[in-house]
Amino acid sequence: RIMRPDDANIAGNVHGGTILKMIEEAGAIISTRHCNSQAGEPCVAALARVERTDFLSPMCIGEVANVSAEITYTSRHSVEVQVNVMSENILTGAKKLTNKATLWYVPLSLKNVNKVLEVPPMQYARKEQEDEGKKRYEEQKLDRLETKQRNGDVMLPVINPEPHTVGYSQSSLIHLVGPSDCTLLGFVHGGVTMKLMDEVAGIVAARHCKTNIVTASVDAINFHEKIKKGCVITVSGRMTFTSNKSMEIEVFVDADPFVDEPRERYRAVSAFFTYVSLSKEGKPLPVPQLLTETEDEKRRFEEGKGRYLQTKAKRQAQMQQAAQQ
Amino acid sequence: RIMRPDDANIAGNVHGGTILKMIEEAGAIISTRHCNSQAGEPCVAALARVERTDFLSPMCIGEVANVSAEITYTSRHSVEVQVNVMSENILTGAKKLTNKATLWYVPLSLKNVNKVLEVPPMQYARKEQEDEGKKRYEEQKLDRLETKQRNGDVMLPVINPEPHTVGYSQSSLIHLVGPSDCTLLGFVHGGVTMKLMDEVAGIVAARHCKTNIVTASVDAINFHEKIKKGCVITVSGRMTFTSNKSMEIEVFVDADPFVDEPRERYRAVSAFFTYVSLSKEGKPLPVPQLLTETEDEKRRFEEGKGRYLQTKAKRQAQMQQAAQQ
Amino acid sequence: RIMRPDDANIAGNVHGGTILKMIEEAGAIISTRHCNSQAGEPCVAALARVERTDFLSPMCIGEVANVSAEITYTSRHSVEVQVNVMSENILTGAKKLTNKATLWYVPLSLKNVNKVLEVPPMQYARKEQEDEGKKRYEEQKLDRLETKQRNGDVMLPVINPEPHTVGYSQSSLIHLVGPSDCTLLGFVHGGVTMKLMDEVAGIVAARHCKTNIVTASVDAINFHEKIKKGCVITVSGRMTFTSNKSMEIEVFVDADPFVDEPRERYRAVSAFFTYVSLSKEGKPLPVPQLLTETEDEKRRFEEGKGRYLQTKAKRQAQMQQAAQQ
Repeated sequence: RIMRPDDANIAGNVHGGTILKMIEEAGAIISTRHCNSQAGEPCVAALARVERTDFLSPMCIGEVANVSAEITYTSRHSVEVQVNVMSENILTGAKKLTNKATLWYVPLSLKNVNKVLEVPPMQYARKEQEDEGKKRYEEQKLDRLETKQRNGDVMLPVINPEPHTVGYSQSSLIHLVGPSDCTLLGFVHGGVTMKLMDEVAGIVAARHCKTNIVTASVDAINFHEKIKKGCVITVSGRMTFTSNKSMEIEVFVDADPFVDEPRERYRAVSAFFTYVSLSKEGKPLPVPQLLTETEDEKRRFEEGKGRYLQTKAKRQAQMQQAAQQ
Repeated sequence: RIMRPDDANIAGNVHGGTILKMIEEAGAIISTRHCNSQAGEPCVAALARVERTDFLSPMCIGEVANVSAEITYTSRHSVEVQVNVMSENILTGAKKLTNKATLWYVPLSLKNVNKVLEVPPMQYARKEQEDEGKKRYEEQKLDRLETKQRNGDVMLPVINPEPHTVGYSQSSLIHLVGPSDCTLLGFVHGGVTMKLMDEVAGIVAARHCKTNIVTASVDAINFHEKIKKGCVITVSGRMTFTSNKSMEIEVFVDADPFVDEPRERYRAVSAFFTYVSLSKEGKPLPVPQLLTETEDEKRRFEEGKGRYLQTKAKRQAQMQQAAQQ
Repeated sequence: RIMRPDDANIAGNVHGGTILKMIEEAGAIISTRHCNSQAGEPCVAALARVERTDFLSPMCIGEVANVSAEITYTSRHSVEVQVNVMSENILTGAKKLTNKATLWYVPLSLKNVNKVLEVPPMQYARKEQEDEGKKRYEEQKLDRLETKQRNGDVMLPVINPEPHTVGYSQSSLIHLVGPSDCTLLGFVHGGVTMKLMDEVAGIVAARHCKTNIVTASVDAINFHEKIKKGCVITVSGRMTFTSNKSMEIEVFVDADPFVDEPRERYRAVSAFFTYVSLSKEGKPLPVPQLLTETEDEKRRFEEGKGRYLQTKAKRQAQMQQAAQQ
């Protein structure tokens, strides 16, 4: 579809959140279709996890986004989908790879939303495809346990913060979940949640560096808890780490099922977004260093640094590998 | 309502699809109101057909669209509505006729969506009005049978196509039908479908000629099949014909009731859109000729040429008639 | 236009904010048209003030909103517009008056947004109309000065609040101003701001009483400061007063022009919204009393009580007057 002014910031760059939403919609369609391909209980595929994804090149207003999705692995109760996004300038014909993302879906029964159904097994062209898929499946399973433990953290308000401190840029928004945000099951689309998360992260980044900013990457996101229609969700973001040219922002989503529900407020999702600041010519600008004050802030900064160095090392290893091939 | 940036392309011209959507909404309101004007089973008017409509002058961001609708004929089971769209520049006060469209609606029972109800007969000012309406009614009935037969056609993907071939510009988008797309009956508004069709046709046209393009006209569209909430729809477009200054694009809409439905994917609508390419000053530009390769493409080109010449002849006849009066 | 699921809460009642947005758009169109009706500099009418408005009956999904606007007074630099909203059930034909609102617009030059232009004088049918209009004009002018002074107030965050305290339900959202939110001048439509304000107020009300709530009335709102495209706006709401069956919520809008602007964050608008809680049958429910803790909260409660009693007295006086006529 063609990118519109509302999909983009004032510099004309399409929001990362808009792209994440398109990716998730494509993944939801292909995996729901697969899970209903055999006779049996009808189901809707719900997003369980998105692997880390990099935004390789910015997309602009007026360009056409080409989204393609493919099922790459099935376990007994989950489906792995690979989604590619290409941006196409229809005036020049130029095409660029914008994103490659891997998503995991779980089929939930249309009649009983708490029942996970079985996934029809896919056919692999080669045995190695299945083995590699299984490895990815085991890895993500481990990682999901880890985030579950981290999820107790809370963002506290700060009064009269200094510029470039954590409290200065931290932001939160509330959103009342409407019918358009939801799947047939009455739960929020994972893509809608990610779009809101990117919106908050972008505001945190812009408040910190007061320039035009764009999403550079999103770390793996696990969707542990469903969010129901009629909930109020609070999406909060705070900066955790800055390198010379990038900012890491942690985003939490809390759901408040306040009407007709005995349940307390709960943490639905959390994730790390990385942003870069761009000049008017589209070149990366230096980022003001984050000032950490409390012990927790210092610890989170070090953890963010760890993630940053790890990602950098991985990318260099990949590039060396690619060079050797 | 005031036209916003999201309603328009990057050159500031409002999308034909946005206008078609407003037209259909006005038609749906007036015909639903009419069909419920007598005591009886409550019903919702569903769009059955839109007659060929020309976009007489482009509308721009910031202008106000004035939409007026009037019932012009009633048969036993259908209502004919005439909708006019005027664009008004509220700064200068200038008003221009943008569109004149004729739509046919059928009342469906709110309780049983497969039941077509009777339409309360309208009062005609003169006997001739009724006779002319009846003639239009018979004509469109015949035409509807014809499209039904054409609808089996399928668009195949092409790998590495050459510029200006059919495969080079052909495009498709998928859309998951949400609650805001639907009427009270849970079926997609005809206007929503037409907006998506115009979006795909516009991408095909822009890919072909790589300039600013606008919708010039839409051939009669028949809505044979309803599309239900929760369906995935695939909208596909391919170029069928080019004259010196216009392009004809055929658009198909296929619905995939992929959850909870035993039904196979089916063709819901198809239509021909005509686009022109505009220079920065708003003047029509020459269009690169479409290169046809297969026998089918050559046949469709000839059929498109037939429609083009027929329309041209009709328009000249009308102008002569107008000149003689 | 037909009310969609996205315009309403889960009980099917259309959000007050959706209605306010339609009212403002109608007012903006008619006053911009009037201000450009004489030769001279082109201008856009910007919303300066909305008088207190009551929501007389709820509107539901599937109903059609009929909005009509009329210019009722012109001063040298401002236009008074009266807007009526009727809800129409097109199945039964039943029509109900939903809102009557009075808005004040000021024409700003399209070339220089800081220049207020002169308004072409309207023609009055009777001399009394002009005199009454002038009286309304003087009254609102006085009232605008008053709010200006109140605007310094700030909402502070509260940690671990008790149920039914002010801190428990207070809420805020942030929104990045996009192109679709703005007029031709690049400033946020007053209607967009009011819609966001109603959204926050509704969340505050729902958090307080945990039932289905609807907007009952909005006190006069003054738009002192324009909000520019690209700003981040923070909309904050807190409960100020409860009677047996209603809640008063104060809402602030602060604008943060964070990109490319030397300006500090500033208060753009503030207003009082009144909500009632409805049972499933649509009857008003008792509202839990607001627990006030600080001196400020107690003072604001008393002020809210004052406004509540004043409105009640006015309404009774009007009813007596109506009974005598």
